[in-house]
Amino acid sequence: MNVDFIAELQQQIGEKFVYLTPEKIDQYNFDGTDRPSNPYAIVEPETTAQVSTLMKLASKYKVPVIPRGTGTGLTGGALALNGGVVLSLLKLNKILSIDPVNMIATVQPGVITQELHKILEEKGLYYPPDPSSYDASCIGGNIAEDAGGPHCYKYGTTRDYILEMEVVLASGEIIRTGVKTRKGVVGYDIHDLIIGCEGTLGIVTEITIRLIPYPQKITTLLAFFPGIEDVVNMMAGLSKIRVVPATMEFLDAECLKLLKGRIQFTIPQDTNVLTIIELEGDNEHVDAQIEPIGEVCFENNGVDLFIADTSQKRNSIWTVRRQFREIIKETVKYKRAEDIVVPISRIPEFIQKSNAIAEKYNFVNYNYGHLGDGNIHCNMTSLEKTAETLERGTRAFTEIFHLTLALGGTISGEHGIGITKLPFVSLELSSESTRLQKEIKKIFDPLNILNPGKIFE
Amino acid sequence: MNVDFIAELQQQIGEKFVYLTPEKIDQYNFDGTDRPSNPYAIVEPETTAQVSTLMKLASKYKVPVIPRGTGTGLTGGALALNGGVVLSLLKLNKILSIDPVNMIATVQPGVITQELHKILEEKGLYYPPDPSSYDASCIGGNIAEDAGGPHCYKYGTTRDYILEMEVVLASGEIIRTGVKTRKGVVGYDIHDLIIGCEGTLGIVTEITIRLIPYPQKITTLLAFFPGIEDVVNMMAGLSKIRVVPATMEFLDAECLKLLKGRIQFTIPQDTNVLTIIELEGDNEHVDAQIEPIGEVCFENNGVDLFIADTSQKRNSIWTVRRQFREIIKETVKYKRAEDIVVPISRIPEFIQKSNAIAEKYNFVNYNYGHLGDGNIHCNMTSLEKTAETLERGTRAFTEIFHLTLALGGTISGEHGIGITKLPFVSLELSSESTRLQKEIKKIFDPLNILNPGKIFE
Repeated sequence: MNVDFIAELQQQIGEKFVYLTPEKIDQYNFDGTDRPSNPYAIVEPETTAQVSTLMKLASKYKVPVIPRGTGTGLTGGALALNGGVVLSLLKLNKILSIDPVNMIATVQPGVITQELHKILEEKGLYYPPDPSSYDASCIGGNIAEDAGGPHCYKYGTTRDYILEMEVVLASGEIIRTGVKTRKGVVGYDIHDLIIGCEGTLGIVTEITIRLIPYPQKITTLLAFFPGIEDVVNMMAGLSKIRVVPATMEFLDAECLKLLKGRIQFTIPQDTNVLTIIELEGDNEHVDAQIEPIGEVCFENNGVDLFIADTSQKRNSIWTVRRQFREIIKETVKYKRAEDIVVPISRIPEFIQKSNAIAEKYNFVNYNYGHLGDGNIHCNMTSLEKTAETLERGTRAFTEIFHLTLALGGTISGEHGIGITKLPFVSLELSSESTRLQKEIKKIFDPLNILNPGKIFE
Repeated sequence: MNVDFIAELQQQIGEKFVYLTPEKIDQYNFDGTDRPSNPYAIVEPETTAQVSTLMKLASKYKVPVIPRGTGTGLTGGALALNGGVVLSLLKLNKILSIDPVNMIATVQPGVITQELHKILEEKGLYYPPDPSSYDASCIGGNIAEDAGGPHCYKYGTTRDYILEMEVVLASGEIIRTGVKTRKGVVGYDIHDLIIGCEGTLGIVTEITIRLIPYPQKITTLLAFFPGIEDVVNMMAGLSKIRVVPATMEFLDAECLKLLKGRIQFTIPQDTNVLTIIELEGDNEHVDAQIEPIGEVCFENNGVDLFIADTSQKRNSIWTVRRQFREIIKETVKYKRAEDIVVPISRIPEFIQKSNAIAEKYNFVNYNYGHLGDGNIHCNMTSLEKTAETLERGTRAFTEIFHLTLALGGTISGEHGIGITKLPFVSLELSSESTRLQKEIKKIFDPLNILNPGKIFE
């Protein structure tokens, strides 16, 4: 611990914003992985000025600063690898304004995503990004990872809704990126560099988001299919009749086994894939789409179209879908999940070959997720967990990542790199692209104090 | 002229790809401004490898290279300021593949945007960005400027549809940016840095674009309003009934005077604003929206809702709208136009104050454009054009830019900075933001050979 740094920090921003006891530190010392983390202090400021002061002192004393929200991240981005201080942004948690004429809202990074959804919905407004963790994760974290979620199929990811930000740089300088209007092309797009940077280029302290009208009607359809090829054909069929659902989620055969007893309806015989198709739009529009979608499903061997048109029925479906990660976790000792993406047409090949990889390495593999985006959560699981299991898991996922890239995909669709995927980045990015990105890091953070050791080796 | 460079270039990529005669040079030596340009050669390669070779030699001999498409840019981005060679990308003009299952197309930068629209429409596919110049401008240029257009109101700008690119760097190195799938969060977003960089960070040689289904039905509504406040209220009313049109264009009172005789319908008395509201969607959906939109228009003092539901009627409207720049040009000697953006709620104040600025500087001011985005094309015009007019225009627009920024807007929504807006960039960007951006330029182009002298001073 750098005692001079801590003393000056306490003096400048106030003692009560700096936590040093092991109990307090433990409250902020985790994320969605089970990797270790060892900060020697937590700083939890209430203003941008305090964040700026922290970074000025961190620069002066060359202390690593690791920004975090609620710690739901799945790649270790919020963990302290080599001491330093964790910067909690949870007290910057206000919705500063909601402006229905300009269709924007200005919020602080610690706002919980689902709470923002609820408040906006009451006003007829919609901020679509909805990562599965959205009842716990916050906007700042969603920006750090460019979080996705089921509704990104129709609406795009977090990036697509972030108009303008206040960003504290490693030096403590405060800049604004982006513009508060829909369009703006003045200078280079450093705004999008900050989004998805996993807290390594700057600390987001204020955000203006873009809103759209909340849909008049939402209806959720469940459809079961014999095979994943049928679902891919169904999606092409929907494009042909010019229908874009809000979500196109799926659960594979292995997942269906776990579903039994957890959902209110029977899984039809000889079906191996469940899809969740949500429609959002005007009342007439949504109603008019159901029949043609049903036809396309049946043409592609779909059976038992179940229509959830009340919020209660819809919630029962989404609760199961959103908790699926936890549901798997409860039934196994070891679970490693990665959020790869492949082109739609290559999904059947990915499912088949990932299952073969699971068999080779003696895992049970659950594939589910955002089929419409090709964004598959691939889960290797085992009933035992030893050092050998972990090592075997790494070997299995090394093959999964090679497969993903061979199919024209990417090794992360929404979770980011953090530390867990860091060893695999060089499989995807060329050395020249990596060199440029590392040089960009040096511009923003020449002392390498902002979330060091993440994304790049 | 650097004769050693030219000789080695001719030898390495072939003489026929290098044009040196004044006649040939003149064919490529213009853009949408009337600024001078003085390249000593044009290079028009047919392959990415040739572009790479050009950049390697340009690096070796420190020769400026200015990439260009069809030269429709409005800020001087394609002009050679200090000799060097202009790189025409017009022979890289192939549509390489259209993939309706993955909803992507791969194209070269010289493809004309409207031609791509037409070919996609035949297949039921849609690439929405449609800058007014889209019958002449090409995808590469659209990417360089992050071009907008009327349909960006609903669908977003060029940036939102570019998934992956092949980019030749100043060094001649070839990298790929982005991913071919909808999601991807591996590393920093250098993809979006290249988009909108005005050809100063890299040369785009291949592009994978994202497609959506072409709408079943398109209907265009014309509505006239007494004042711009009525139109802003109408837009808020549409949001309340949760309607998002595809376009929300406007022409102001001064424009309406020019319209007389050019459109097939009468301009109602006491109206001062024309709006073009286009609806796109399923047949039932579009039809069902017309009546509620009409009601919201009438509630906000709208008169004479004209419905263009055939492609012939629609084309007659859009032809006038898209040619409006030329229509103004024909009637005046001097015209300077800038594409500022202000928040929706500040549009009436902008219109009023920009007219006051026009009066102060003795110009006739035409405001029109993409009202839904707050993206206004502000045109200062005069029946005479002397050095004094030009200088007076600069003073008027300096006030316009200050006004724009005071209203919370940005000085360019879709045309970029190039050279014409370069003196005003420091009004909008902070010195720290500018410093970071200049450092990024140095990483990508350490010798400052790629389109030098643009965007930043």
